[in-house]
Amino acid sequence: MKDIGMEIPTFDDMLAAHERIRPYVRRTPVRTSDYLNALAGCELFFKCENFQEPGAFKVRGASNAVFGLDEAQAAKGVATHSSGNHASCLSYAAMLRGIPCNVVMPRTAPQAKKDTVRRYGGVITECEPSTSSREETFATVQAATGGDFVHPYNDPRVIAGQGTCSKELMEQIEGLEAVVAPIGGGGMISGTCLTLSTLAPEVEIYAAEPEQADDAARSFRAGYIIADDAPKTIADGLLVPLKDLTWHFVSTHVTDILTASEEEIVDAMKLTWKHLRVVMEPSSAVPLATILKNRDRFAGKRVGVIITGGNVDLDKLPWAK
Amino acid sequence: MKDIGMEIPTFDDMLAAHERIRPYVRRTPVRTSDYLNALAGCELFFKCENFQEPGAFKVRGASNAVFGLDEAQAAKGVATHSSGNHASCLSYAAMLRGIPCNVVMPRTAPQAKKDTVRRYGGVITECEPSTSSREETFATVQAATGGDFVHPYNDPRVIAGQGTCSKELMEQIEGLEAVVAPIGGGGMISGTCLTLSTLAPEVEIYAAEPEQADDAARSFRAGYIIADDAPKTIADGLLVPLKDLTWHFVSTHVTDILTASEEEIVDAMKLTWKHLRVVMEPSSAVPLATILKNRDRFAGKRVGVIITGGNVDLDKLPWAK
Repeated sequence: MKDIGMEIPTFDDMLAAHERIRPYVRRTPVRTSDYLNALAGCELFFKCENFQEPGAFKVRGASNAVFGLDEAQAAKGVATHSSGNHASCLSYAAMLRGIPCNVVMPRTAPQAKKDTVRRYGGVITECEPSTSSREETFATVQAATGGDFVHPYNDPRVIAGQGTCSKELMEQIEGLEAVVAPIGGGGMISGTCLTLSTLAPEVEIYAAEPEQADDAARSFRAGYIIADDAPKTIADGLLVPLKDLTWHFVSTHVTDILTASEEEIVDAMKLTWKHLRVVMEPSSAVPLATILKNRDRFAGKRVGVIITGGNVDLDKLPWAK
Repeated sequence: MKDIGMEIPTFDDMLAAHERIRPYVRRTPVRTSDYLNALAGCELFFKCENFQEPGAFKVRGASNAVFGLDEAQAAKGVATHSSGNHASCLSYAAMLRGIPCNVVMPRTAPQAKKDTVRRYGGVITECEPSTSSREETFATVQAATGGDFVHPYNDPRVIAGQGTCSKELMEQIEGLEAVVAPIGGGGMISGTCLTLSTLAPEVEIYAAEPEQADDAARSFRAGYIIADDAPKTIADGLLVPLKDLTWHFVSTHVTDILTASEEEIVDAMKLTWKHLRVVMEPSSAVPLATILKNRDRFAGKRVGVIITGGNVDLDKLPWAK
């Protein structure tokens, strides 16, 4: 284990997380579409994390953190910053445990995501839509409340929780040869690496990223973390940069990082809504967009795809005129 | 058994249908939402027939008819008239068996539904959007092709097939006290009655209908079939009237028929997209609309809801400005 100043979660941590969070998360179904399979030239198995009650896989890591707190810390609650779904999911988990949750969100975050945080009793403090503003604002909020900082992805409890998703996927679908998940800060991908590197090391792990927020792809090629302060993409869940813990997993276990344009992401999103008939957000469409763009790489394979979230503003769909 | 000039399908027919169609249809998952439960004041279990490959429960009845044909008739194929999903699903089943399928559709049917029929190799002949025009045009098409007429609902093979949906629902969810499904011609409701009247006669069966196409509700109260020629509602799957076979089941086993306004249907549709995160068509939103309108009747109960279909034109969503 490299010394990166933080505990790297283990496979056993992931197993413990799955036991801990079982009462609070759903074992989400896997959807298939013959039409999309024919289009992609491979067999796609979509793990529907958008079907979690708060609409995103992040309820896994958030629940693992919240329900792992001792009573003294739980009384002070939790705090975080997030572009959206982590905020909703942490608020949701905190509501289930009955403890306070403070979140810092960019003022530009979709209204649907702010509404969800508030519905679950989360208290929002708004910041500018940049990593620097977010971190400054958070420091102030966290100091004032004493809430335990549950980072949206660079936290071993969170990564262990996210890893439970691919554990379920492997239990649900036999013979997977690759898994593709979106990458923002890298929490889902790190959890996937954590689980599959022990459970099924032969399975290839692809991270999918918007071209317009391709800091992880550039980091992967450069061999060190490259962070952009304020990228712009419709995939608003993927704006944040890698951090040391997630970089550890990405640099060690990821097969490749593939990118897609904004238009390709919207096309893939609409295809999924139409043929899988599930509501998912733009970030969740990036994997299919990259698969359709890299048919040779996936030809004939059995490919798991993580649909990470489904919190989208139905009044502002990206294909609306 | 009353003599209604047609064979009334039996519980054993439904069981045989389930065996026959098993390779061609999906055992669809059941979705829940804590949010919608709180809103409705009861426990809702949504059976996602929109997740069938061709996007609707009608693949059950269509597959039962198509795969039950003898070789001689199969060579001539099948023919039908339908406001949309039966046409798609019959085309799909015929494609799986490799036989011809001719369908008569109203020219006003959603483009998405016409596209789906053609994708599955169905040949469309258009008619005016009225029951009378539909039946006239169909007689011409059917005489020309010799295809076996698979009526969208008034056919014992079709009703037996649709009944497999509530059989699965009862296997998936314990202790259901009521089931609510949309009613147009009555195929799904009849299949539900067929199955539950034997399997779980204590379960209440509610049919849900648009106020603007409430012919089934008026029939139910009058005690005889009332048919409107060309009702207008956003729930375009529910435009057709009851026929003798479906009237038999509706008049014998249905607890009540509830109605909802166009606005209530659109609101329920949007609620479902947002909180269940599934793409469903307006017809499928009528049950939730009626449940939210009749809270007292369902208070505290465990209620199954059939999401009948998910073929919707994403470019013409009813809440778009």
